[in-house]
Amino acid sequence: MIENKNPHKTSLSDIGEFALIDHLTQSFSLENNSSLLGIGDDAAMIQHGKNPTLISTDLSIEGIHFDLTYMPLKHLGYKTVMVNLSDLYAMNVHPQQITVSIAVSNRFVLEAIEEIYQGIALACKNYKVDLIGGDTTSSKTGLILSISVMGSAPKKKIVLRKGAKENDLLVVSGDLGGAYAGLQILEREKAVFEVNPNSQPDLSTYSYSIERQLKPEARKDVIDLLDQLNITPTSMIDISDGLSSETLHLSKASKVGFHLFEEKIPIDPEVSLICEELKISPVTAALNGGEDYELLFTIDQKDFDKIKNHPFLSVIGHACESKKGCQLISRLGQQIELTAQGWQAFSR
Amino acid sequence: MIENKNPHKTSLSDIGEFALIDHLTQSFSLENNSSLLGIGDDAAMIQHGKNPTLISTDLSIEGIHFDLTYMPLKHLGYKTVMVNLSDLYAMNVHPQQITVSIAVSNRFVLEAIEEIYQGIALACKNYKVDLIGGDTTSSKTGLILSISVMGSAPKKKIVLRKGAKENDLLVVSGDLGGAYAGLQILEREKAVFEVNPNSQPDLSTYSYSIERQLKPEARKDVIDLLDQLNITPTSMIDISDGLSSETLHLSKASKVGFHLFEEKIPIDPEVSLICEELKISPVTAALNGGEDYELLFTIDQKDFDKIKNHPFLSVIGHACESKKGCQLISRLGQQIELTAQGWQAFSR
Repeated sequence: MIENKNPHKTSLSDIGEFALIDHLTQSFSLENNSSLLGIGDDAAMIQHGKNPTLISTDLSIEGIHFDLTYMPLKHLGYKTVMVNLSDLYAMNVHPQQITVSIAVSNRFVLEAIEEIYQGIALACKNYKVDLIGGDTTSSKTGLILSISVMGSAPKKKIVLRKGAKENDLLVVSGDLGGAYAGLQILEREKAVFEVNPNSQPDLSTYSYSIERQLKPEARKDVIDLLDQLNITPTSMIDISDGLSSETLHLSKASKVGFHLFEEKIPIDPEVSLICEELKISPVTAALNGGEDYELLFTIDQKDFDKIKNHPFLSVIGHACESKKGCQLISRLGQQIELTAQGWQAFSR
Repeated sequence: MIENKNPHKTSLSDIGEFALIDHLTQSFSLENNSSLLGIGDDAAMIQHGKNPTLISTDLSIEGIHFDLTYMPLKHLGYKTVMVNLSDLYAMNVHPQQITVSIAVSNRFVLEAIEEIYQGIALACKNYKVDLIGGDTTSSKTGLILSISVMGSAPKKKIVLRKGAKENDLLVVSGDLGGAYAGLQILEREKAVFEVNPNSQPDLSTYSYSIERQLKPEARKDVIDLLDQLNITPTSMIDISDGLSSETLHLSKASKVGFHLFEEKIPIDPEVSLICEELKISPVTAALNGGEDYELLFTIDQKDFDKIKNHPFLSVIGHACESKKGCQLISRLGQQIELTAQGWQAFSR
């Protein structure tokens, strides 16, 4: 699909770096007042008045973070932005600007890079974020995307990983395990396709989980909701590596333990069905699967009534003394110590 | 050198991502008042009062931007920071924070990554910049570094690529072509080494040029000097792709042409000797070599007396009408139109 076998495709070496940047970014305009200067100089310029500026950055690498066999390029652009925006929402801050750096090998043609930027542009539009700069270069082998995100908020609204207190409630948005279940289905179909390239998989019964994997959404709506409900979480993180790993991060930063109730972990029925089909535990998918980009946060007990029965939000546990550690309480009442079995970057 | 054949070396898969980040960044502290929150949460936090914040970002990829055959890892860390700081100096702004994202394959051991971070730490110390965040992951093949840099300054001090007016003087700091000459020597010795691994090259007569290639310095001192001399350039850029390409960038952004005098281009005697040895023109090395990280800027003629005969600074030409284009005036008085033959990311 992305090899340069088509005479209508444009080789990147015919264009040159500067013309490529101009071409890819011409449809991006600056929408935020705080975006003073965008692409085209040595640096971009932003201004955030008297409030702190938040910055986060992520690298996404072909063969490690994504597989172009089943990841459409437009989705890749969209998802890579989501991963970054999610980090700022995890601090209760609205992202306002991003920079995008991209490295591609010469097996990519212009039209492929354009598709990635279409996904980036859609993400910018949907989330009201400005693309203000970046770098474009070649790579020896695969595709590399490096995105940084910036935003600002009054200091008292910013939520760190530290701040959870004993007896605070542990809350998660949406449902978990879907991105992992979707990935397992895609990997299975890829294996089938490699054996029989004429196979036509029917993925319609897996559509929710596959969308969770290929086109996740960052939880801007949850940040907006918390603001409307006048709740400032005491600590917060986004779920990129799995519920288990993220709970341990909050525990370490806040110096509290957590009790987490298996039966309270929100799991979509489709995810449960896929897990049954694949003979894996849905709770394991939720705990260790990752890539759900939901928000995990703690709130003071006094705020419980405000979120009770909200369709987006599930109270899944509470903070306890640090020395009790982080325990999963199973449906049978057993305590199982949480371990970080999430995505380990260097163990593959 | 960096393969894991030594029992005292530590495999990255034994450590895990989070412990690796902790380990690599424990010696970094926050020195700037504007660095509110560093590594360890979803995002970093900076605050720049009422002034604009400048941001720039660069990707550096093994096999494209550097060759570990002759690039020591500590130098690589140092140089990659310099490349980024140079972008902010090119806007007349002092960088204050950086984020560093790194992707490595499992052929790298912990000690190799530590060396890169030692170079980054030295750069931070020498230039009074804080490391505030980043990402650490694995790659399928080589080493990838993605650095973003931030800083702020009063709006009237910030210098863009646009702003040069007709008759402004074109000034360059330091001397040019050295990094390119150094690269040619290193490539030659690499080729010799590949034929005869026992060869012991004597590189002492090329030390200036090799240092220009392996351990460049960003021109903080030039920014300080301009401040002391009370000069605000009318336009500025740093020389990463070569004098020719950068002059064309200033020309395009400022909508002026330039006359550039061959005899005024500053070239170190060692660079001239190397070029003679390699049978290349030193002026070509200066125009198209790149990686010198000197500053190229325009000043109003009234400021000429302040910089006249300064050892760092050379007036190499002047801005003219846009329609005259960018012309190199040779020693014999011929006009040669400048073309961007600099580093073309996609043509290799």
